[in-house]
Amino acid sequence: MIHSAQNPVYKHLLKLATHRRERLKTHQTLLDGAHLLQSWLAAGLPIECIYITEDALANPEITALLDAATAIPRTLLSADLFRTVSELPSPTGILALIDIPDQGIPLKSGFCLALDGIQDPGNVGSILRTAVAAGVEQVWLSPGCADVWSPKVLRAGMGAHASVQIIERIPLEDACQCFAGNIAATMLDGASDLYDTDLHGDLLLVMGSEGSGVSTAIASQATRRIRIPMVPGIESLNVAAATAICLFERVRQTRS
Amino acid sequence: MIHSAQNPVYKHLLKLATHRRERLKTHQTLLDGAHLLQSWLAAGLPIECIYITEDALANPEITALLDAATAIPRTLLSADLFRTVSELPSPTGILALIDIPDQGIPLKSGFCLALDGIQDPGNVGSILRTAVAAGVEQVWLSPGCADVWSPKVLRAGMGAHASVQIIERIPLEDACQCFAGNIAATMLDGASDLYDTDLHGDLLLVMGSEGSGVSTAIASQATRRIRIPMVPGIESLNVAAATAICLFERVRQTRS
Repeated sequence: MIHSAQNPVYKHLLKLATHRRERLKTHQTLLDGAHLLQSWLAAGLPIECIYITEDALANPEITALLDAATAIPRTLLSADLFRTVSELPSPTGILALIDIPDQGIPLKSGFCLALDGIQDPGNVGSILRTAVAAGVEQVWLSPGCADVWSPKVLRAGMGAHASVQIIERIPLEDACQCFAGNIAATMLDGASDLYDTDLHGDLLLVMGSEGSGVSTAIASQATRRIRIPMVPGIESLNVAAATAICLFERVRQTRS
Repeated sequence: MIHSAQNPVYKHLLKLATHRRERLKTHQTLLDGAHLLQSWLAAGLPIECIYITEDALANPEITALLDAATAIPRTLLSADLFRTVSELPSPTGILALIDIPDQGIPLKSGFCLALDGIQDPGNVGSILRTAVAAGVEQVWLSPGCADVWSPKVLRAGMGAHASVQIIERIPLEDACQCFAGNIAATMLDGASDLYDTDLHGDLLLVMGSEGSGVSTAIASQATRRIRIPMVPGIESLNVAAATAICLFERVRQTRS
């Protein structure tokens, strides 16, 4: 059982929870809470170690999880230390240390989603969930996006991280150049009404931030410049809502 | 200029910022930041008083706002006090005290959206933005929803509150009974695929919370039980994403 704030394992956990640099350096992150841990196990992905509080051992949901993962090392963490590591307002008392999955290579075809400078962690997490539900094969994040492996994005993603290939800090311009299918960029002044746009076949959908939109270099590579039709006078949609509308228009067009 | 934390005006502002009870009792709330204030002015809605910090008077965006609103009383608030009232991580130094608009009467026809127990303020705000962009005429919120006039929901709504009729704490069952058009409830096990559902004409779309869904009493009144088609095995979409998908399917079907 870890009690001391000077314990090196605890110090590592705390850094992972709070510093992107530590996550990048060690290529590790934390899954906070039973739900995320469950999604990881269900996908058959490896877990380095589970950290639990003594109280959590009395929770049947958590003991069932532990029974399903007997091969994974576990360590007790005092409730006081646990609270400092957890992102949740009411920590569930269980978290897992994982290696961030290897990034893989950008697809050149299929159904992909690129995020260009989307900074809000809640939006990025929500977008990942929607992408999984819509059958996106790979999600690309430009260097300006929120850290996709941060506790906040993981929390908002609610397990989506386990179900879709993610490539972060991707040089978006180069990757777009190599994509062989259509590149559809969503823009407030896009020439093509979303519902008049053919979204069949190999497709890379690019979403920009609400403030700046898709960057010029990417927009110039787009083969489709999409406009979501809105009531006049409206500034814009939340980016996660706009992404859901576009991804599911593809779902509508391509369903059998 | 208000300097003292004992000042009764300041105490009222602080209570409005932090307590729903105060907002309900006085029927007032705060618009935090230049953007929200601008949306209120643009819609021609009344403002009781503007509170500003001395520093904000050096900001051209804010002085332009003040020049456009010379008839509204204004009071200086010390930067220290302002920070305690503001929801924003970096306060812009301007906020407005407003009366919450009168609720009006639930529509019996047209295009309406009902939220059943949606508690997350960010989701409620995002949904309001989407509703405005999709041309929804009235939004109903059940008593279990987040406080739609709280600073957090106002912030996430980014001005949508000024552009759509809002009825909060509505007895949803009764209001549904009086609605003369179709009532479409979104459910994970809905019988009707969203894209096979006719959404023309008078329509009330009902969205439930991610945890509990639409309540049974409301679901039993639905004339359409909609399922968003998703990749198998996915738990559910974020509720704001699901709402965007449904509202814009109506937009698609009804556009000319």
